[in-house]
Amino acid sequence: MATGKINVSVDNIFPLIKKFLYSDHEIFLRELVSNATDATLKLKHLTAIGEAKVEYGNPLIEIKVDKKGKKLHVIDQGLGMTEEEVKKYINEVAFSGAEEFINKYEDSAKDAGIIGHFGLGFYSAFMVAHKVEIITKSYQDEPAVHWSCDGSPNFTIEPSDKKERGTEIILHIADDSTEFLEDSRIRELLRKYNKFMPVPIKFGTKTETLPKPEGAKEDDPAPTKEVDNIINNPNPAWTKQPTDLKDEDYKSFYRELYPMQFEEPLFHIHLNVDYPFNLTGILYFPKLTNDLNIQKDKIQLYQNQVFVTDNVEGIVPEFLTMLRGVIDSPDIPLNVSRSYLQADGAVKKISSYITRKVADKLNSLFKNNREDFEKKWNDIKIVIEYGMLSEDKFFEKADKFALYPSIDGAYYTFEELQEKIKANQTDKDDKLVILYASDKEAQHSYIETAKSKGYEVLLLDSPIIGHLMQKLETTKEKISFARVDADHIDKLIQKEDTQISKLSDEEKEKLKADLEAVFGEKSNYTIQLEAMDSDASPFVITEPEFLRRMKEMQQTGGGMFGMGHMPEMYNLIVNTNHELIGEILNTKTAKKKERLINQSLDLAKLSKGLLKGADLTNFIKRSYEMVK
Amino acid sequence: MATGKINVSVDNIFPLIKKFLYSDHEIFLRELVSNATDATLKLKHLTAIGEAKVEYGNPLIEIKVDKKGKKLHVIDQGLGMTEEEVKKYINEVAFSGAEEFINKYEDSAKDAGIIGHFGLGFYSAFMVAHKVEIITKSYQDEPAVHWSCDGSPNFTIEPSDKKERGTEIILHIADDSTEFLEDSRIRELLRKYNKFMPVPIKFGTKTETLPKPEGAKEDDPAPTKEVDNIINNPNPAWTKQPTDLKDEDYKSFYRELYPMQFEEPLFHIHLNVDYPFNLTGILYFPKLTNDLNIQKDKIQLYQNQVFVTDNVEGIVPEFLTMLRGVIDSPDIPLNVSRSYLQADGAVKKISSYITRKVADKLNSLFKNNREDFEKKWNDIKIVIEYGMLSEDKFFEKADKFALYPSIDGAYYTFEELQEKIKANQTDKDDKLVILYASDKEAQHSYIETAKSKGYEVLLLDSPIIGHLMQKLETTKEKISFARVDADHIDKLIQKEDTQISKLSDEEKEKLKADLEAVFGEKSNYTIQLEAMDSDASPFVITEPEFLRRMKEMQQTGGGMFGMGHMPEMYNLIVNTNHELIGEILNTKTAKKKERLINQSLDLAKLSKGLLKGADLTNFIKRSYEMVK
Repeated sequence: MATGKINVSVDNIFPLIKKFLYSDHEIFLRELVSNATDATLKLKHLTAIGEAKVEYGNPLIEIKVDKKGKKLHVIDQGLGMTEEEVKKYINEVAFSGAEEFINKYEDSAKDAGIIGHFGLGFYSAFMVAHKVEIITKSYQDEPAVHWSCDGSPNFTIEPSDKKERGTEIILHIADDSTEFLEDSRIRELLRKYNKFMPVPIKFGTKTETLPKPEGAKEDDPAPTKEVDNIINNPNPAWTKQPTDLKDEDYKSFYRELYPMQFEEPLFHIHLNVDYPFNLTGILYFPKLTNDLNIQKDKIQLYQNQVFVTDNVEGIVPEFLTMLRGVIDSPDIPLNVSRSYLQADGAVKKISSYITRKVADKLNSLFKNNREDFEKKWNDIKIVIEYGMLSEDKFFEKADKFALYPSIDGAYYTFEELQEKIKANQTDKDDKLVILYASDKEAQHSYIETAKSKGYEVLLLDSPIIGHLMQKLETTKEKISFARVDADHIDKLIQKEDTQISKLSDEEKEKLKADLEAVFGEKSNYTIQLEAMDSDASPFVITEPEFLRRMKEMQQTGGGMFGMGHMPEMYNLIVNTNHELIGEILNTKTAKKKERLINQSLDLAKLSKGLLKGADLTNFIKRSYEMVK
Repeated sequence: MATGKINVSVDNIFPLIKKFLYSDHEIFLRELVSNATDATLKLKHLTAIGEAKVEYGNPLIEIKVDKKGKKLHVIDQGLGMTEEEVKKYINEVAFSGAEEFINKYEDSAKDAGIIGHFGLGFYSAFMVAHKVEIITKSYQDEPAVHWSCDGSPNFTIEPSDKKERGTEIILHIADDSTEFLEDSRIRELLRKYNKFMPVPIKFGTKTETLPKPEGAKEDDPAPTKEVDNIINNPNPAWTKQPTDLKDEDYKSFYRELYPMQFEEPLFHIHLNVDYPFNLTGILYFPKLTNDLNIQKDKIQLYQNQVFVTDNVEGIVPEFLTMLRGVIDSPDIPLNVSRSYLQADGAVKKISSYITRKVADKLNSLFKNNREDFEKKWNDIKIVIEYGMLSEDKFFEKADKFALYPSIDGAYYTFEELQEKIKANQTDKDDKLVILYASDKEAQHSYIETAKSKGYEVLLLDSPIIGHLMQKLETTKEKISFARVDADHIDKLIQKEDTQISKLSDEEKEKLKADLEAVFGEKSNYTIQLEAMDSDASPFVITEPEFLRRMKEMQQTGGGMFGMGHMPEMYNLIVNTNHELIGEILNTKTAKKKERLINQSLDLAKLSKGLLKGADLTNFIKRSYEMVK
């Protein structure tokens, strides 16, 4: 048996980097600025522990575009490199400088927030540059060095006359990457990836207006001066302690994150944990609409203040992806498949920590300022309902503060609701029937009928409410939900006492035959004769709860398969105690009878929103005739 | 000045591969199967040109999962490797074997479809395996070789007693990747990436039922046998010539691509070009709904029958991403940013080729079978309208076959429509007014009014139609679109002749005052008195075209900013020649006057779908009273 060592063919390393290092070439700038930040933070650390006997000062990182010369410069004032270090860190690909540094200074360095994988990141420059130069001077008293490489594995190294401490990287931008010579493109990238990095980043200058000198005239122009244009905020809110922040600070950080967002967030949740995993961040509840799809994926994921992605799928439970804000954690593994991510222990813990924090925050808002919580309910309910459906642990907590609004603007918890309605809305089988409407306008007459019986009607209009009702019906005991137009109100909540019909059985038979004769064969109404109050409507159209709910649930996923294709089924409830029904029964002329039936049916359809098209136009024409 | 050669630190190569080679670990299987396919196709090529004096036979690639032993095997019957070749191709990372092969056999090899980057792809195995073995025997008369590497850069190499030609790769799956020991996961990956690769891939066996032997009894069980379970189709439809395919073949390929899709495609477009770029594929028009977002990204991109991605953004013009099917082209650069992709010359040519082919196909369908084209119009219009809006070249072509359906089911091209309506619908300023409705039911009475004047009413209901109308109004000369409820019909198409009002100016003043008194301050109706036919409606509510269209356009992007927040604006047109108006004017009792006005307004609101909630319930109550 022979043994050997695998040889990496150096001549192929540059094409390999270009092709495989990152699928997105723009990443190079993030990598170079990360390296510059590392070099700066390392110096800070060394001066802090007395290892480096130099003045740390107020270093910044500067990005310069030289469009004419087709060059991009990244300049830092960090610890720089000696010739020895250039040879070690740059000439050996994939040598992780940060790792070595952290190993050496162990505990103290970790707190300093050294970012990561120096070495390989540098080579990403070759994704966009045909030639790269490094001019660097170490904080140690050694001569400056000028390194240069044209994209082949060959480099040159020579002395440089650079005086200031730090490193300058010069990228000679390749012809297929000239987009990176545009100021606007570079600004976009710096804002995307480096907006919150911990060292100030300068990109150009801006003009600042100074106060007028004393004694200046009214129309003298105010003096101005050119100042550095710092593109990032090195101390974003999430890195601070909650106790150091006011409500206004959270709001202004929200505006910083979403400058195009005009609406203010409803409230925020500050995340801050360092054991058993490290995670900071701020989540915001924005005003949410009922559309489940359009508003996801606004949470940004950072690692040590470097932007990583805005896809937090698998890290945050799905129902929370509708929130906004920032999560910063070095403990989330990257470059792994989503399915692996979801099975990862640390990620599972992070996910359930976030869920718990959100539930606790909601609970404290509910307890401490219920009035305000009720006001916000409509804007946040979709997340809470979605969470109750998908996470059992969240359901348990949210069951205490989830609200059920009535049509008249009262808000009940489930327990309060039960208490309020149990006397009046328990049916003869001891089941509590919760009445609701989904549209105040469209179901107005049905709501009125229910209210006239003293019943409480809820207004439940989110797209997933059908699923939540199903869950509540199976979780709680002896309760059921029914929409106000699902049946005749006395059938929805059946009590012992029954109304006596004014009509005899014979008359009922005749009435039914009369109606069927007018409606014809193809009618999709099932006629149901009921003895109701004489002042209730003569005709009412209802839509059975079960079928309707299944169809609605299928539209948002779930429900019973194939329900979507079922036709609408309606019942026509005829109030045998209404005066008009007596009139229909007793009318002798067939034509008049038909007119009475049709007009009544049209009015019932109108009430349920079913009178449309030609039928509606004809109804209006007939009605104008009657007005005259 | 010193020079030197960059050194790739071998010890770091494996962590590097694990972290950076592909962000998605599952890719390893695609790479290994691609290598196996390459090895097989190379042998085929060498036997075809007489270079290899062996029997090619019917080689296949086999994938075996050994869950107990935590191993995954990929076995091919291709050309295999000698010890020399293992040292050259495997021990040197990033040495592209396919490139060398293609350089050597140049023209002849290209046609054989050798896939690509052998060498680096192999190392992707280390993303999921802690140890990898290769057992290989070359087609040349040399001993077999057994290579093994445990993920450090050290390998061992020794003789093997493998007898059959070909290569077996054995992956010892790492603990964080045990998902790849599940049959179901491997089957899923093979189906995703290798469904159409050119060499048969065997994964397990399946039981096949044989015909019963002669003389077998009725209830004897039919004999069965175990056969190879081939998971791919090595000859997918797009690789064949259009002349060799029937309509049924295209449909069955569609079912192969989308097994969960029950609806058949409407028609297909076979793409086939080899100069100036290489591209084959089949695009399908599915039935499209009016939802622009949910149906994108169903086109699959392949390179030489290897699945690459189902995100063809930037390659196919955006309006065509709603189509389905397959595009196979080795000329599309991968691993580049989308912005670079869109600027790439080859990609631009590909994009405009596809657009042209789609336009030509639609044109030939229109010309050759107009009746069928009209039937399909509703299911395809959204793509065509979107294309007309976003690509000027497509607009020019589509303007000849884009259809405008009338409310009565006739379909006109724009030219035909102009011809049909110009006599009757040209107004006094010589402008052609095209009337349309967006909802046959909701706008029924307005449609009837327009039709009673002999006008043609189109039914235009796609969500982007507002944008298209805008484009047509600016592209064509002297035309404008108006929805039937945008104004009183005689105002929509103004002719020279004017109706004479039955009311004097004084009476008009009084009428207006009467109406305003009843409507009150907070009415959002602008009253407009018009002399109309005496049998036209007494009250009509209209909604000005411009404001409504801008609001609608904003919802689908575009339109005027801020329009979405504008309140609805309505005009109330009062027909001064209607009998009822005379009655209102002449009624002496204030109460009766108010009742007449309110009832008329309610009926007008009903006709425009504006009577809702309590107003509707009250209207219905009043109407029941009137029926009695």
